[in-house]
Amino acid sequence: MKTDIQIAQEAVALPISTIASQVGLSATDLEPYGVDKAKLNWPAIKKAMASPDLGKLILVTSISPTPAGEGKSTMTIGLGDAINQRLHLKTMIALREPSMGPVFGLKGGATGGGQAQVIPMEDINLHFTGDMHALTAAIDTLAALVDNYIYQGNEVGLDPDRILLKRGIDVNDRSLRQVTIGQGSKFNGIEHKSSFAITVANELMAILCLATDIADLKQRIGLMLVGYSRAEQPVYVKDLGFEGAIAALLANALKPNLVQTIEHTPALVHGGPFANIAHGANSVIATNLALHLSDYVLTEAGFGSDLGGQKFMDFVSNHLEKKPDASVVVATVRALKYQAEGTTDRLNEENLPALREGFKNLERHMLNMKNYGVPVIVLINHFATDTQAELELLQNLVRDQGIDARVVDYHEQGSSGGVEAAKAVVNLANTGHVELQSTYQADDAVKSKIAKVAKKIYHASQVEYSEQAEQDIDELVKMGKDKLPVIIAKTQYSFTDNQKLLGAPTDFTLHVKGASLKNGAGFIVVTTGHVLDMPGLPKQPAALDIDVDNDGKISGLF
Amino acid sequence: MKTDIQIAQEAVALPISTIASQVGLSATDLEPYGVDKAKLNWPAIKKAMASPDLGKLILVTSISPTPAGEGKSTMTIGLGDAINQRLHLKTMIALREPSMGPVFGLKGGATGGGQAQVIPMEDINLHFTGDMHALTAAIDTLAALVDNYIYQGNEVGLDPDRILLKRGIDVNDRSLRQVTIGQGSKFNGIEHKSSFAITVANELMAILCLATDIADLKQRIGLMLVGYSRAEQPVYVKDLGFEGAIAALLANALKPNLVQTIEHTPALVHGGPFANIAHGANSVIATNLALHLSDYVLTEAGFGSDLGGQKFMDFVSNHLEKKPDASVVVATVRALKYQAEGTTDRLNEENLPALREGFKNLERHMLNMKNYGVPVIVLINHFATDTQAELELLQNLVRDQGIDARVVDYHEQGSSGGVEAAKAVVNLANTGHVELQSTYQADDAVKSKIAKVAKKIYHASQVEYSEQAEQDIDELVKMGKDKLPVIIAKTQYSFTDNQKLLGAPTDFTLHVKGASLKNGAGFIVVTTGHVLDMPGLPKQPAALDIDVDNDGKISGLF
Repeated sequence: MKTDIQIAQEAVALPISTIASQVGLSATDLEPYGVDKAKLNWPAIKKAMASPDLGKLILVTSISPTPAGEGKSTMTIGLGDAINQRLHLKTMIALREPSMGPVFGLKGGATGGGQAQVIPMEDINLHFTGDMHALTAAIDTLAALVDNYIYQGNEVGLDPDRILLKRGIDVNDRSLRQVTIGQGSKFNGIEHKSSFAITVANELMAILCLATDIADLKQRIGLMLVGYSRAEQPVYVKDLGFEGAIAALLANALKPNLVQTIEHTPALVHGGPFANIAHGANSVIATNLALHLSDYVLTEAGFGSDLGGQKFMDFVSNHLEKKPDASVVVATVRALKYQAEGTTDRLNEENLPALREGFKNLERHMLNMKNYGVPVIVLINHFATDTQAELELLQNLVRDQGIDARVVDYHEQGSSGGVEAAKAVVNLANTGHVELQSTYQADDAVKSKIAKVAKKIYHASQVEYSEQAEQDIDELVKMGKDKLPVIIAKTQYSFTDNQKLLGAPTDFTLHVKGASLKNGAGFIVVTTGHVLDMPGLPKQPAALDIDVDNDGKISGLF
Repeated sequence: MKTDIQIAQEAVALPISTIASQVGLSATDLEPYGVDKAKLNWPAIKKAMASPDLGKLILVTSISPTPAGEGKSTMTIGLGDAINQRLHLKTMIALREPSMGPVFGLKGGATGGGQAQVIPMEDINLHFTGDMHALTAAIDTLAALVDNYIYQGNEVGLDPDRILLKRGIDVNDRSLRQVTIGQGSKFNGIEHKSSFAITVANELMAILCLATDIADLKQRIGLMLVGYSRAEQPVYVKDLGFEGAIAALLANALKPNLVQTIEHTPALVHGGPFANIAHGANSVIATNLALHLSDYVLTEAGFGSDLGGQKFMDFVSNHLEKKPDASVVVATVRALKYQAEGTTDRLNEENLPALREGFKNLERHMLNMKNYGVPVIVLINHFATDTQAELELLQNLVRDQGIDARVVDYHEQGSSGGVEAAKAVVNLANTGHVELQSTYQADDAVKSKIAKVAKKIYHASQVEYSEQAEQDIDELVKMGKDKLPVIIAKTQYSFTDNQKLLGAPTDFTLHVKGASLKNGAGFIVVTTGHVLDMPGLPKQPAALDIDVDNDGKISGLF
């Protein structure tokens, strides 16, 4: 069987200007990166944003992820191909760009799979157009400027032990989670504890994904909270005057990247916050642009509906020019059996009881999405080991709840693997006026916002706050920042904060460990359980299999 | 007066394919990055390298740098423009790409000045085509893989306290010179001391600049010394199996970048090791490529002839398809007066005695270069404050030593600011067969190599070795690696290892502090005096002036 990278490398890409012409863009609207990637330039972005018509927005979310795989990106891409190539409707896909670090850890890129991939997959998974690298440079330049400010005089009296900004690299490096810097000679700066997070976890990534233009980008950078002075006053980036330089480093990265699927559907791949520790959606500028340029826009939210889905509905969609017109919940028979069994050992065998039990996970995800008031459909990614009885049972279980369910196989068959499903999605998106019902109100207090998400979305019975979390919230109240939206950092594997509790747990306590202000992004990150913002590498990292030949052809990415 | 960035931004770039056509390349040979930058693709590189003819190679070096500025890049670019646009000879310029970190520190990019610049200057000084970022990612991925190897079992028994690889970022961050990593939880890796160097100082940069193709790149990465095992055995990257993944990260960066000067001369800007702590020349692949594609190639070596010049002659040129045909030593009246006075206070006043005294610095540089057996010319960058008497005195002092001297003003006038000088350089390069006389022999012992450079080039009377240096050299002997070329890390401001000793000091001692094997690059770095591989930021960093407007136009770079 061919690997994803083999299929992707055998695909013949059209010139990116040909792809652009599908949505009315010309070569002069593009800044090419090689022959098959481009950024849109600012005149083109501004012109497109001024057009009055907006397409239909279709959000793809999923069950809680398992090692069995649910294939959300594959679904998003395959569905986009089907709508574009089979239904002949003007379509764009808006996806996050992958973080590079995890590519060298566990096998698995973030560009879809099989016949449903965005290409060139190896570029997108590695350096792409440099957006992640620009972010890393911006994060570390800002941190260096701050530490240098302290070293060179520190007029505002910034407390080195209360710097909130982390450094960043786009590498899975557990050794950098907690470090001490500024050691050795007195010329090496002020010694203090510090920390590196993976690039995508930094507030600057969130800002890049929320900014509507460079001016907004710069203003948001200026609003970032650096830390506190010894006199207990908050110090913002604009107090130190670094926002212009950091915006200059990120200005190019703010332009969306255009690529294509294997079947030549245009895709904007731009911005990549994780959904467990951040807001988990591609850039607002890319999704808005796609809405202006095409009639149907497919986008996805990271991890399950409790993470990316909830954050998209309650936060991201407020930054878009329109709310989602329909929502797709992705599931697989195998993953639902895993939800019941907690092991991959017997997934190849038919197991209707396990499927019925595991369905409870899907049920909660699909009903949560339905409660937002957006039309929902469940799409099931077909695997060769699925039995007919399993597929029928699963569809019936979904339909019993008044929600349509279809089986698709975009992975093996490309767009022909789900034409009827694509029609159903299009029909759903054309249902009509949608009134999105948010989980919480904008002026709810922070604890009320957390409680509403915990109860309505996670189905927790109660929320407990650590002493640190209480202090953090008191500080937010003191600063008058406690009414911002909440981005809850939680394990992706469970509705609870314990990654081992699969299915659809009830009657549990959500443990809030802390709350931190992301003032430039405009939200409060609420941490629960044990969530890390810097992954580690496994014992056998994927790096051991990655190679390149003398023609520059890369192998070993999956 | 217009700033460099204003002049550069007002320049109208030709499409990069038009530039490429000057040297027989077509659009299909290029991977565009925007409209005005491109990488050559591998088929084009391989085809060009197979052509039999080689152009003339002209090396530009200079006096010891001072705060008064000597303008070496401006000279290289202006001379290239003059040979190309005024003498109508097929010309290419090969330059290093700037490190981004220093751009945010002290004002001053590395793309020339005035009318003699490579463009787009703001791109080249910031992210460019991502080569520096790819290097940073490769450096930090390798370091993370090594620490993870120890954490996950450490079969070879690598000693965490004897890891020689540093992490890297392309930021001036003094706080990262000495750090402790792996702190906190036991899941955060093994606690040990570590260090970050600026990206350009890493061995991977040297390897990128020396590799002839991807296979060579990968082999060199495999040869890098990671550290020592607890059993005192050297551990190389290939022992751990990481060379394929790291080569995959760098494969794209190995392709040279094509840009243009303001006057549309093609320039390959590729690779950027510093010349004080590394070998200080652009990539071998770019210079060789330029030699195949054009009749005259201008390249420069970093800092003064004692640093980049010596390293180019004794090391880099052995990796090129030919030795330099001529060498240009750049000087300015102002800088030579500074060499005598040690202050910028009175540089605007005519001062013939100071010039005569400061000339001793130029004299040593030009005679050192002449001793290599390569024809030498001195070119003087004209400043508005230079008096006629000063310019005449300086030219006469040079000519008294049997070396031609000319005054040029490429900065203000572009290529018309030195047509006769360009003719003189071309004539010099056509003198005929050059037999380069190296400073040392390949099989000299390491201390003998150091002594020969110290005495012949720096004019030291003796060399002293610290205890650490003695140990390091013993280890090199034990490993059988003591016959490799030496790259001496030394302050750029003085022939000595004390940056305050200007002019042409004699009767001094060179203090060798250490020697480290760069086994992938194939050289030994010998450290002298106080040389840092991670710069710091100044009290008023240039970042405070850098900004970007809502159209993406960057300001405040100089």
